[in-house]
This record gives sequence, C-alpha cells and structure tokens, in this order.
Amino acid sequence: MQENFGVLVLGHGSKLTYNKRTVETVAGMLAERMAGVTIKTAYLNMDRPTVEEGLKSFAETDVTTLYVLPLFLAHGTHTLKDIPKILGLPDGEHRTTYSLGARNIDVVYAEPLGIDSCIADLAHRRLTEA
Amino acid sequence: MQENFGVLVLGHGSKLTYNKRTVETVAGMLAERMAGVTIKTAYLNMDRPTVEEGLKSFAETDVTTLYVLPLFLAHGTHTLKDIPKILGLPDGEHRTTYSLGARNIDVVYAEPLGIDSCIADLAHRRLTEA
Repeated sequence: MQENFGVLVLGHGSKLTYNKRTVETVAGMLAERMAGVTIKTAYLNMDRPTVEEGLKSFAETDVTTLYVLPLFLAHGTHTLKDIPKILGLPDGEHRTTYSLGARNIDVVYAEPLGIDSCIADLAHRRLTEA
Repeated sequence: MQENFGVLVLGHGSKLTYNKRTVETVAGMLAERMAGVTIKTAYLNMDRPTVEEGLKSFAETDVTTLYVLPLFLAHGTHTLKDIPKILGLPDGEHRTTYSLGARNIDVVYAEPLGIDSCIADLAHRRLTEA
C-alpha cells in the first residue's frame, strides 16, 4: 500500500439501519488495524454519504492514494458496473485517477470480501447459535 | 442443534455468476464442517432454485429440523421481511413449522453473517492485496 493513503469503505445502503451500522462498525475495526489512516464510509443506495460525496470528502485531507473497498459479500452488478462507473474505472481495471477539483488522487479499487474459509467459519457459528 | 437437521443456505441471487458461486462454495465449506448433514442452497432473486423450491426439496430427505441461513452481510429488508414472509415466520420470531405437504418440518431461522472481527480481518486482507 502507498504512503499518504486513505480508505473509503463502500456499503450497499438500506432502508433499514443494519447495513450502515455494519459498514461503520467494520470501518471502525479497520481503523484499529490501520492506525493513522483516514477511513471513511459511503453508500451506493438509500444512505448517505453517497459514493461521490465520500470521494469528494478526501479533498480536505492529505491523502494522495485512496483505496476503495466494496464491503460486499460477492462481486455483482454493483461492484462490477455501478462502482467502477462512478470511479471512472475502465472495465476490469483496478487503478485510475480521480479528480478532487484542485488536485487528483490515485484510486485503487479493492476486491469485495469474496470466498474465504473465515466466511464459512462465521456462517457455521451463526448456525450453532441459532 | 437438533438431530436429523438440514441446512438451507440462502443467497441474494444475481444476474452475474459470482453470488451463486460464493453461496455454493460457502455451502460446500459448511458441508466439510458438518459431516453427514444435508446442505442445500437457494436464492431470493434471479437464480434458481428459489427459496420455495429449496424448502420443498427437503421433502425427499429425512430432515425434521431445517436451519435456514441467510448468507447476507447484514440484516435488511430481504432478511427481515422477504425471507420471513416465505417461511411464514411472524415478525421477530426465529422458529416455525413449515409444511412439506405430506409432513411438517421445524424451521429455525439463523442470523446473517453480521458484525464480526473476522469480517474486518478479511476486509483488511483485501486492502493489502489491492
């Protein structure tokens, strides 16, 4: 990862409070793992800040490289079409430059959570708790 | 958990292949952790089998208690309204009886993945891999 980097955690958004609470809490847990890094959250739908608002909010920081993390379980239309379109990412690309008006920042688009044994471990735990 | 139980893992479904692949792979990982348990998958939207088809498919098993696991990151309208409606679960309840025609099975509705430090660990890993 680059120096002077920041992280924008993107959530789906929801009419209910749970998605936003999950995204904000996970972002807080990330902050514990990445001391000194500016970590913000934004949402595709139904919640604020929007993705554009989240991106623009880094104008007032010294961040030069922004990691955009889609907090989604799997890739889908949101992660492969909607978010890349907002970021101005060509199909299949993971790096681009985004204009904050007075300056540009480098953007690195991370993968969603995806398949991992820890997801199965957590799913198993939810079953045993039920 | 009960004897003679089965598991139905529910995914959101997608026009693309990634959600189904994730749900099927996690279901396979669960099967490794739960030897001898019948584990099936179903989808709310855009993929088959549907939730109803997934439920009915347990008619041909000896399962008497079915754990329904929503493989969603957080609660939302799908997990709190749509799925409970299909299961016939009253608001806020987690247990009901579901008719398979010739017999009834007990249904236990598990929680979605939700907030957990392992989600933050995985998100952190996706950032370092980006």
